[in-house]
Amino acid sequence: MKGFDFEEERIKQEITKLGAKRVLLQLPEGLKPEGPRLAKVIEKAGGIPIISADPCYGACDLASTDAERLGIDLIIHFGHAKLVKREPVPTVYVEARATVTVDEAVEKAVPLLSEFRKVGLATTVQHVQALAQAREILVRAGKTVVIGDAGRINYAGQVSGCDYSNVRSIVNDVEAFLFIGGGRFHALGIALSTSKPTIIADPYEKRAYSIDDEAQRILKQRWACIEEAEHASAFGVLVGLKTGQRHLDEALRIKELAEKNGKTAFLFAIREILPEALMEFPTVDAYVNTACPRISLDAPSKFLKPVLTVNEFMVVSGEFSWETLLKKGLFEN
Amino acid sequence: MKGFDFEEERIKQEITKLGAKRVLLQLPEGLKPEGPRLAKVIEKAGGIPIISADPCYGACDLASTDAERLGIDLIIHFGHAKLVKREPVPTVYVEARATVTVDEAVEKAVPLLSEFRKVGLATTVQHVQALAQAREILVRAGKTVVIGDAGRINYAGQVSGCDYSNVRSIVNDVEAFLFIGGGRFHALGIALSTSKPTIIADPYEKRAYSIDDEAQRILKQRWACIEEAEHASAFGVLVGLKTGQRHLDEALRIKELAEKNGKTAFLFAIREILPEALMEFPTVDAYVNTACPRISLDAPSKFLKPVLTVNEFMVVSGEFSWETLLKKGLFEN
Repeated sequence: MKGFDFEEERIKQEITKLGAKRVLLQLPEGLKPEGPRLAKVIEKAGGIPIISADPCYGACDLASTDAERLGIDLIIHFGHAKLVKREPVPTVYVEARATVTVDEAVEKAVPLLSEFRKVGLATTVQHVQALAQAREILVRAGKTVVIGDAGRINYAGQVSGCDYSNVRSIVNDVEAFLFIGGGRFHALGIALSTSKPTIIADPYEKRAYSIDDEAQRILKQRWACIEEAEHASAFGVLVGLKTGQRHLDEALRIKELAEKNGKTAFLFAIREILPEALMEFPTVDAYVNTACPRISLDAPSKFLKPVLTVNEFMVVSGEFSWETLLKKGLFEN
Repeated sequence: MKGFDFEEERIKQEITKLGAKRVLLQLPEGLKPEGPRLAKVIEKAGGIPIISADPCYGACDLASTDAERLGIDLIIHFGHAKLVKREPVPTVYVEARATVTVDEAVEKAVPLLSEFRKVGLATTVQHVQALAQAREILVRAGKTVVIGDAGRINYAGQVSGCDYSNVRSIVNDVEAFLFIGGGRFHALGIALSTSKPTIIADPYEKRAYSIDDEAQRILKQRWACIEEAEHASAFGVLVGLKTGQRHLDEALRIKELAEKNGKTAFLFAIREILPEALMEFPTVDAYVNTACPRISLDAPSKFLKPVLTVNEFMVVSGEFSWETLLKKGLFEN
């Protein structure tokens, strides 16, 4: 796969340094096709590679438990920056930085930012090295550029699927955001977490566009989900089983809150939050998801029942208003 | 849910006896709708119930690791008999015996067995208590009835999704098998493991029918998968992550055998063997499944590439012939 730095030399060195035999490779869906090729690299370095074939959407899903059960000496986790604090099995993160240039896409974004003077800049870990270059282009176009650093994740300006603390930290300092990267997922996260106009500069497609209409559509869907959940009498509270998605105490608090409001509530432990899995419980009317807040958010129509974030459930429970939710962000904590 | 014994009194007693607080309920798909009702029973007994919402196809999938991570005091596993030897978390098996009577379905099966004098009787754990009654009906109809007991699983005459040792132990003593239970899955397992005519007596639908045409159709599909895999150059060897499905040493042996035959082979760790998961690796031509042998067997068309059982891979490797495979069984070890 061209366009990403898989740091093969560093991988070999880590294997040698640790004398690792069994090596588990974990890759997000977009990079999984590279698994077999990277396995060969590991084999040549003296390791026995095992590729994780289960879905992986973030470093919150680090396969430590699987690794322990397979007697793994080293996990190589690709495509995400370190997230969990404790790694029971030695772990190397290969962030898979993109080698694509961002200039053309950022240049194309400039006209879309014409109404705004102060622009917040954000990206995923794949493009953090391109932020300086993007900033320069925007400054040259007369913009004041702000790159947020709330200190919660690894790099200034970085956003992840569920962490928008960096953009939220500068929300009062900017009029709009420019996100650099492919796909709509992270840009939507920025728009939904900040309620600010958000433009995507996609370096792969070399184009720029606004995500605001889509963010508005999702907000309407979320409002409909919240309204539907207000009529629910039985709630299912989802407790994630992935390493960085396990929040049992929060789930217990939500169950208590639901019961205080005269509702019935059940706790469900779950690894992959799939529509089929939730449909197995016909007596449950709506779910509250304490695991990965993004799972249902962008595509509620896949799920036949409302699947709310914790913050959305607070609106259902009357703990705070829809307006406060928009201010807090749909899924930030 | 009527028709099953959920042993609620025993559940309450076990919770009291252990002083269990956090209780994990694990149910197979067919019984999952009962989860919330059973959770209420546990709550009344002083426990904090958490329902596992992940798929569960057998006691091989005992949620011990999940339970450890959630600080569970007691697992209640429904619908399957005990299978794994070691349970790191205290576990109670509620086999969910069916309360339906089998007489009518067995009576209807008698004419379908007219050509056979010696009949093997088999069922799932749900109906083992009905075997005596079924035997009586068959004996009255002039049959010699044999119920196998290879000593590998819990009850004489019992079959599970992947264990047909009881019927295989009497394969030379009978001319046909009568399976008592709902659905085709276990009866197909009997037909494919024994190559004997197999009749289903379904007590829920109160009817009897032969599974032989379907078994023949599956055999043809399997042969086609084996032929396709003979042209594969890169194999993926699947290592299961579920408690009773983890066979890394076997996977390593298969990789070695593939390489001995001039093929490339990669190891993949996987929890849920879903078609989408296997399609993430376009450079892999065929898979060998050391986890749950039934996953791909009955529905190969769901998978876009051949997914072979270990025994089927032995045919591909020339270790033994198709005829030997039929004698050994497609997926028995």
